[in-house]
Amino acid sequence: MTKKEVAAQIDELRSKKIGMFGKDFLLTWEKSAQEIEATFLVAEILRGMRQNSISPRFWDSGLGVSIFKDNSTRTRFSYASACNLLGLSVQDFDEKKSQVAHGETVRETATMISFLTEAIGIRDDMYLGEGDRFQREIGAALDDAVKEGVLPSRPAVVNLQSDIDHPTQSMADMLHLVNHFGGAANLKGKKIAMTWAYSPSYGKPLSVPQGIIGLMTRFGMDVTLAYPEGYSLIPDTLEVAKKNAAQTDGNFAVVSSMQDAFRDADIVYPKSWAPYAVMQERTELLKVSDDSGLKDLEKRCLANNAKYRDWECNEQMMKGTNGGKALYMHCLPADISGVSCKEGEVAATVFDRYRNETYIEAGYKPYIIAAMILLAKVADPSAALKAIMQRNTPRTAVLP
Amino acid sequence: MTKKEVAAQIDELRSKKIGMFGKDFLLTWEKSAQEIEATFLVAEILRGMRQNSISPRFWDSGLGVSIFKDNSTRTRFSYASACNLLGLSVQDFDEKKSQVAHGETVRETATMISFLTEAIGIRDDMYLGEGDRFQREIGAALDDAVKEGVLPSRPAVVNLQSDIDHPTQSMADMLHLVNHFGGAANLKGKKIAMTWAYSPSYGKPLSVPQGIIGLMTRFGMDVTLAYPEGYSLIPDTLEVAKKNAAQTDGNFAVVSSMQDAFRDADIVYPKSWAPYAVMQERTELLKVSDDSGLKDLEKRCLANNAKYRDWECNEQMMKGTNGGKALYMHCLPADISGVSCKEGEVAATVFDRYRNETYIEAGYKPYIIAAMILLAKVADPSAALKAIMQRNTPRTAVLP
Amino acid sequence: MTKKEVAAQIDELRSKKIGMFGKDFLLTWEKSAQEIEATFLVAEILRGMRQNSISPRFWDSGLGVSIFKDNSTRTRFSYASACNLLGLSVQDFDEKKSQVAHGETVRETATMISFLTEAIGIRDDMYLGEGDRFQREIGAALDDAVKEGVLPSRPAVVNLQSDIDHPTQSMADMLHLVNHFGGAANLKGKKIAMTWAYSPSYGKPLSVPQGIIGLMTRFGMDVTLAYPEGYSLIPDTLEVAKKNAAQTDGNFAVVSSMQDAFRDADIVYPKSWAPYAVMQERTELLKVSDDSGLKDLEKRCLANNAKYRDWECNEQMMKGTNGGKALYMHCLPADISGVSCKEGEVAATVFDRYRNETYIEAGYKPYIIAAMILLAKVADPSAALKAIMQRNTPRTAVLP
Repeated sequence: MTKKEVAAQIDELRSKKIGMFGKDFLLTWEKSAQEIEATFLVAEILRGMRQNSISPRFWDSGLGVSIFKDNSTRTRFSYASACNLLGLSVQDFDEKKSQVAHGETVRETATMISFLTEAIGIRDDMYLGEGDRFQREIGAALDDAVKEGVLPSRPAVVNLQSDIDHPTQSMADMLHLVNHFGGAANLKGKKIAMTWAYSPSYGKPLSVPQGIIGLMTRFGMDVTLAYPEGYSLIPDTLEVAKKNAAQTDGNFAVVSSMQDAFRDADIVYPKSWAPYAVMQERTELLKVSDDSGLKDLEKRCLANNAKYRDWECNEQMMKGTNGGKALYMHCLPADISGVSCKEGEVAATVFDRYRNETYIEAGYKPYIIAAMILLAKVADPSAALKAIMQRNTPRTAVLP
Repeated sequence: MTKKEVAAQIDELRSKKIGMFGKDFLLTWEKSAQEIEATFLVAEILRGMRQNSISPRFWDSGLGVSIFKDNSTRTRFSYASACNLLGLSVQDFDEKKSQVAHGETVRETATMISFLTEAIGIRDDMYLGEGDRFQREIGAALDDAVKEGVLPSRPAVVNLQSDIDHPTQSMADMLHLVNHFGGAANLKGKKIAMTWAYSPSYGKPLSVPQGIIGLMTRFGMDVTLAYPEGYSLIPDTLEVAKKNAAQTDGNFAVVSSMQDAFRDADIVYPKSWAPYAVMQERTELLKVSDDSGLKDLEKRCLANNAKYRDWECNEQMMKGTNGGKALYMHCLPADISGVSCKEGEVAATVFDRYRNETYIEAGYKPYIIAAMILLAKVADPSAALKAIMQRNTPRTAVLP
Repeated sequence: MTKKEVAAQIDELRSKKIGMFGKDFLLTWEKSAQEIEATFLVAEILRGMRQNSISPRFWDSGLGVSIFKDNSTRTRFSYASACNLLGLSVQDFDEKKSQVAHGETVRETATMISFLTEAIGIRDDMYLGEGDRFQREIGAALDDAVKEGVLPSRPAVVNLQSDIDHPTQSMADMLHLVNHFGGAANLKGKKIAMTWAYSPSYGKPLSVPQGIIGLMTRFGMDVTLAYPEGYSLIPDTLEVAKKNAAQTDGNFAVVSSMQDAFRDADIVYPKSWAPYAVMQERTELLKVSDDSGLKDLEKRCLANNAKYRDWECNEQMMKGTNGGKALYMHCLPADISGVSCKEGEVAATVFDRYRNETYIEAGYKPYIIAAMILLAKVADPSAALKAIMQRNTPRTAVLP
């Protein structure tokens, strides 16, 4: 990307009608199409600055707080990179050290960690009905604190994965597609198969498939969701996908066979998840710490999973895709047959062929997160980015 | 705060006679009145800079080490914010990973973590006779290391809570009072009730009430300490309070009823703590890891606590204060009756009314800590702050 | 160090023929003599800049990742300081939170933590045959990722201790010697005794003695390694030392008595380690989590250690050294008789006399690590350092 191209993207950004300032990024479907496009633009502008060794630092000081209720490597490093890129220092809020519950505690904690904080990234995807709710509760507490004059400014909450959506993942995935296919316009009519795949584990969250069908249906794509009987998602998210497809002249279909989904697909996204009903049951068991109940549930689920071992993205399956050359996607880590497990989501030969693509896909995440933060915190982002370009601070003491 | 007001405070700072350079901040009563005032001034100057979007960064690089021997959210984030504000990166020294004992180990550790370190914040409040001693041992080791030419400069030790004092808390509390009542001069003669309050837990440290009576008695306030029989503090700290009051034409009284303390009070600070004698007994039991002894002690203490359930800051109690409108203070989190526990320190309706005030109170802490670091590390703080104002680096790439 | 002296060292650096750019620092014997000298020069230049209150910051943003498979205080803070000095934010990759195994997982993890990362410091010294291998596997994955266009640039891997070498320690030790004896030229012919010493613990890694004999033999020194029967090191490392000594007109000898090693020594480095054969056995037991086997091994080892209680660096032993005044060295913490243990590696009176020297020795480590990072990441380091000197950014808002 040349500096001229970066400048052109800043101009394009100026033309977008967006109202993201002061608002959290929790679900992609709460953002307008232009806001989604603006997020991609800012991510690309920041990536372009870095390519040109221009420091994209926006803040001279400030904290970026992270709250991870689940382990994470990819997202943790993406968030740390995004904060660092913008000039924020990451400070973990450690759930194990300081338990956050509901109500008064959430309200107080949200305020106490925010006096000099610009962004709060939250991953909370374990319990259905909890993660998104928790993020909104934090957001509401911050709104109150700003309104009451307690906080000097409103930190931006970024959803780093909830029970409903995983927008930093789906947006990074989408940006990968945009660049891979040479522009968003080229995605129109492309078929993407978001399919369940076999895994010898259970309890994987639903937020990735939900995020994918909720986002990809917005750009006129032909989105097919496939899963074995019983492995449905949160019903509301399918409604979102249907509505999106109708509005963008795209298509959204649900089928019950991987083969059907893969047929003529341009893109495939085979990934395991737990059935919605199982996640509900699991949530209740976790709440009461019913260990024997959880073990029994796991046993039943793995037995059920085992019925669908043939849901594997292998060479035979790939042959059915468009020209046999669909782009394979995954949020990583994938369960690779014969590598990370005996039988899994994807055959080793298929994964090998697309490994670099999945890495490039993941590489967009830091910039997506940085874009989300910037758009929530800066009233006039194109002016800010233009100023940063003009400031032209080199990222290193000497050019590399 | 306007830039002009910030500049005026820098001028006022220049008039103070202080000798804080190279000295640690461990107990407020080791600092002169002018030094305490200077700390408030620097905190307000830093806050004013941030309000005017001027970066208060003093260091371009350097570490701010934190040592937390007890869990902490509020103080941890305050310290991280303070370091970040001044340009320091926080590096935790993790007690669980690397146990610090006495003597050689303390001396060596203090040096090893300090080669490029500007500040060390320590929270060590669990054992009577330990926390303050540990902080001084670290300080002495650092003095030696500088004298011997081992360290290029002396990191500042900041007491983030010891067994004796909690100066970052009491100073933040005091600055809140100064601003709330429109200036330090207006605090003269105001009555503050620092009272024990019922809590369904035991073992809360004594450093908050000790810190409050040790500081508030220095500004001509009328300080009343109240606790049920047996819930006394470290005797020396009461002596400090008495001496302070005598010197500033203020008053210090100890009573044994919450009602008496609240009578005509302008400010109330109801908070649970463990009896001094219990803390002594607990310290001995903890040292020998006597679990059954600790359980027995807890049982006895909770039974004793239960006798004083009526020590609750409720509407009836508040009615006795000056005009029924005393300012409620708390270091947070408070035990709120019917919210965080069945019966606790404060009634929900009272807390609700003052919630924002307690949040504003907490919001001063990052600036207080930053001021303590700066005053210990910079020989001529008013010159430094003036230079920072003149440098006029914006805190963000564009003005917000 | 004056600014002029710093400038002179930058000039000297320019004269060195080095090819360190884009290469990891894993073993000192993989680096040429000029590269080792260049590393010392850069470390001293950075230290000189700091002494002159010039900010040595090279990056405006970027991450420095740390992977510690073993607990660490000294090295952790040294790495954090080095990263901070150069402008990088440290982000820990926590093994406990996210287990790294082999093959696919290592390759993927290496990439996922590196999108905006400039350096990766790794400590992995627990298992023979593992640490160095793991570091190379990470390095190979990064090479691939750069070659495949997945990563924008290649993070530098720095060995913070492996099963084979501990280059940040040995290089800091060596720089201490260079400065202590007034220049590298003065080290020629000096006798250093790297000897085993008694400790009431077992399982200490071999990387320190291996690192010392692998490095000190390169500068014409007279290196004597001493250990009781059975306490041998990895055989290959002795071959390295022999070859080095032959090439630099120095000497390398192995003896089986501390007295012999200390005789006329100018420098002594008495330190406990586990026998090579024990480490091999331990590695196998750890791999299969054979707890009773491990307990049995420990018992046997401690019993064997106990035979060599007289391997203590005490006053009597020191008398045999050159003028009775050899320089005592240790990587710390030392097992000090009567202080940190009943009987240990060194007598308290000897340690007391050299304590400050060991602290000064340790103080070089942050600069050595920073030099390793810079030399691996900057194509023309002397030009970069000259630019930093000319930029002349003060490290603090006002000169101290």
